Amino acid sequence: MTTATAYSQLAQLFARLHRFSHLGAIAGWDQAAMMPPKGNDARAAAQAELGVLMHGLITDSKLPTLLSQAEQEDLSEMARANLGEMRREWRMANCLPSALVEAKTLASARCEHAWRSQRAANDWPGFLQNFREVVRLAREEGRLLGEQNGLSVYDAQMDKYEPGITSAQVERIFTEVKSWLPDLIAQVRDQQAKVPVPVPQGPFSVEKQRALGLEVMRLLGFDFDAGRLDVSLHPFCGGVPEDVRITTRYREDDFVQSLMGIVHETGHARYEQNLPRDWLEQPVGRARSMGIHESQSLSFEMQLGRSRGFLQLIAPLIQRQFGPDPALSADNLALLYTRVQPGLIRVDADELCYPAHIILRFEIERALMNGDIEAEDVPALWDEKMQSYLGLDTRGNYRDGCLQDIHWTDSFGYFPSYTLGAMCAAQYFACLRSSTPDLDRQIAAGNLQPVFDWLGNHIWRQGSRWSTDELLRRATGESLNPAHYRAHLEARYLA
Amino acid sequence: MTTATAYSQLAQLFARLHRFSHLGAIAGWDQAAMMPPKGNDARAAAQAELGVLMHGLITDSKLPTLLSQAEQEDLSEMARANLGEMRREWRMANCLPSALVEAKTLASARCEHAWRSQRAANDWPGFLQNFREVVRLAREEGRLLGEQNGLSVYDAQMDKYEPGITSAQVERIFTEVKSWLPDLIAQVRDQQAKVPVPVPQGPFSVEKQRALGLEVMRLLGFDFDAGRLDVSLHPFCGGVPEDVRITTRYREDDFVQSLMGIVHETGHARYEQNLPRDWLEQPVGRARSMGIHESQSLSFEMQLGRSRGFLQLIAPLIQRQFGPDPALSADNLALLYTRVQPGLIRVDADELCYPAHIILRFEIERALMNGDIEAEDVPALWDEKMQSYLGLDTRGNYRDGCLQDIHWTDSFGYFPSYTLGAMCAAQYFACLRSSTPDLDRQIAAGNLQPVFDWLGNHIWRQGSRWSTDELLRRATGESLNPAHYRAHLEARYLA
Repeated sequence: MTTATAYSQLAQLFARLHRFSHLGAIAGWDQAAMMPPKGNDARAAAQAELGVLMHGLITDSKLPTLLSQAEQEDLSEMARANLGEMRREWRMANCLPSALVEAKTLASARCEHAWRSQRAANDWPGFLQNFREVVRLAREEGRLLGEQNGLSVYDAQMDKYEPGITSAQVERIFTEVKSWLPDLIAQVRDQQAKVPVPVPQGPFSVEKQRALGLEVMRLLGFDFDAGRLDVSLHPFCGGVPEDVRITTRYREDDFVQSLMGIVHETGHARYEQNLPRDWLEQPVGRARSMGIHESQSLSFEMQLGRSRGFLQLIAPLIQRQFGPDPALSADNLALLYTRVQPGLIRVDADELCYPAHIILRFEIERALMNGDIEAEDVPALWDEKMQSYLGLDTRGNYRDGCLQDIHWTDSFGYFPSYTLGAMCAAQYFACLRSSTPDLDRQIAAGNLQPVFDWLGNHIWRQGSRWSTDELLRRATGESLNPAHYRAHLEARYLA
Repeated sequence: MTTATAYSQLAQLFARLHRFSHLGAIAGWDQAAMMPPKGNDARAAAQAELGVLMHGLITDSKLPTLLSQAEQEDLSEMARANLGEMRREWRMANCLPSALVEAKTLASARCEHAWRSQRAANDWPGFLQNFREVVRLAREEGRLLGEQNGLSVYDAQMDKYEPGITSAQVERIFTEVKSWLPDLIAQVRDQQAKVPVPVPQGPFSVEKQRALGLEVMRLLGFDFDAGRLDVSLHPFCGGVPEDVRITTRYREDDFVQSLMGIVHETGHARYEQNLPRDWLEQPVGRARSMGIHESQSLSFEMQLGRSRGFLQLIAPLIQRQFGPDPALSADNLALLYTRVQPGLIRVDADELCYPAHIILRFEIERALMNGDIEAEDVPALWDEKMQSYLGLDTRGNYRDGCLQDIHWTDSFGYFPSYTLGAMCAAQYFACLRSSTPDLDRQIAAGNLQPVFDWLGNHIWRQGSRWSTDELLRRATGESLNPAHYRAHLEARYLA
């Protein structure tokens, strides 16, 4: 019997972690989509126990030696990339003292639990009491994470979701966007004010919406032998790569948002369903980053889903469910799905206003993490930026202002991923359109294969083999270039 | 800081095991009720990893010392009972070498997997090839388990499901049953031949059956804030005590079996939902045994569910879903639910023929485990006993004979629990009727509280505090007495 290499011992450990996280992922999906309320305490205890177990495995004292030894071993290119991802995970788990991890978990749970009622009650002062501690602990976490790789507190937080990116890069990109976005919004609104858009009249039964959603998922290549569609309060894509669980929610008075939500989650799902099969149990087999994940959902939702060709393709399916209403024509669907209307709520925002919501959050959370502002300064900054970017008054309306998102009860640095993802998606499709000039005609004819092939070859099956930047350069020939995003928005909204 | 007692260290370990088993239980339910087919391999790997983890925890070398030390500590009565259950679990896990556990798991998985197609193909010789190894390993397991507490191979297997019972006791009981059962069946069939029973005509939509099932579960006190009803190929009661998941399956041409199946699983569920809340994370907080578990489902299905009063209560609910068909009257439902018709399949058997199926299996599996027969002798014995107990010819029909159950691909000694449970249920209700003489009138009037109170006080909230025998004696004033079972059957079927 030969001695196992350090690398193979590590691979075995990470496979174990993958299997344990499988159970946590299914239990997490169940909690959101299936679990009755009284199951909550026992589920939380079970998940916490699993968390302790997995933390114990990844902080095992043998790991530093194994990682160093493995780096000296003769490894394939994939194995070496895998080893890099292992070290990244090890570093993130090991630079935090468990007392901090525990304190942060508790503070976040308390803050989130209270937020559920405080948001409804518009109770910013109440929220602030818990939020101060969450901010304090997140700064401490960011400081410790940052010490490891020379990053600022906020950059270290962002690095958890988008490894390798810096806030200087993001600021450069967002500053550029701010230079043209408000004008573009104003111009588009001006144009659209002249065009009335008939709104489809419900009720749209949940049953028919579900049937339509399933049909569209099939069209989008979702593998129902390896996943499901269910309902939860907040739609998400969960489960495991081998068995992807997406959720939606239905409103009987409107199917438009829910349907596009399903398209969005199906984008996440196809990424997961097509990660490199031979590497699924290893870190290198996972999705590259949250930004790249969002770039898949937004490729589906924004690039493909709201394209004229796709709406032509699905209009007959919609009409088959809800009748031959002219408000359900492809032409009118295109108007509905590109309607621009600044509003207070991020998750309800249209494609054009969405980045304004993100830039605002990025600027506030960065200042907060880096200590330029304190927790109590958030509402005033929020009011000022909503006025400046979207022309909306949010003073005193915390519920629809800085209390609207769940993110800050637990994490900072995630928000940029949404807009970075939207930019990547625009860049992919610019590339795809140049190699497939008749793309929109093919989509309208029901041939979505060129989209699936491009994303599958360039993104899905690459897992975490390369850094985000290298993945982008290999896929599109250049690093992230927001010019494609601007061009996409102008082409769609000023046409 | 005081040093933790040995008992409290054990309690902490068993709480961890409980939390891990929570994840396994939910993942197991999901596998049967929700999971798409391609999720299977990853799920199996995750469950196996969890099994290895839990086996490692319960075979930790510190346990023997902790158990002995705790036995010297000053403990409450509940804690002492808990310690006894801990030792039992420890003994069962520790007397088996892991090579045997692994070999058994593999052989069972292989046998079960092949059985799925072999049963349909009526392929006994094919099955036999895998079955021999399953039998060999189960004998070895039983021998090792039995060495620990001086039991025969078969008694050691039975002890896993019904601690404390011996095959000598079971044989005494079953021999007595065999002395009157065939005659009783013949007599009842004779009587029933004169009474035509109109069969309700479908189709019965799945939606309506589900609505009816939920309504009946509500009537039976199922707590929907702590559990769910879903669909699976083989109905079961799973999940965790804090969140009980029962399943059923529907046939559009018949609602009668599915409805009573829901009543059955609800009996299991209420036991779980009412185990002692303060002890749920500990072994003493669990259900006493499989026989006692079946006694709860059969209390609901056979004693309560098929009683005249209950059928009067639910007939209007049934008619509200399926219309005012006279075949759906309480009188006709009573005829339907007491129809006796010997058949080949255990799970389809009526109340009166069911014990014959069990006695046959008990006699065969005991002989097999104790080495009195070999695997290849099973079909001939099966044929002989089916002829003798139910007058049916099964020669050459393995599919509906010895290949019909999944149990023997994995376990021996479970079958008696079904009939022991039916006997316990009859004994409970004899007791309950003598303290509540107008029980049936109360049930018909919709007051099921006396049933819930009796079972709750005497069984549910006792967990594993006492042995099965002591539980029965405290509840009913006597040890298991099959006379109540006979009296129940005669009262119901010869009335």
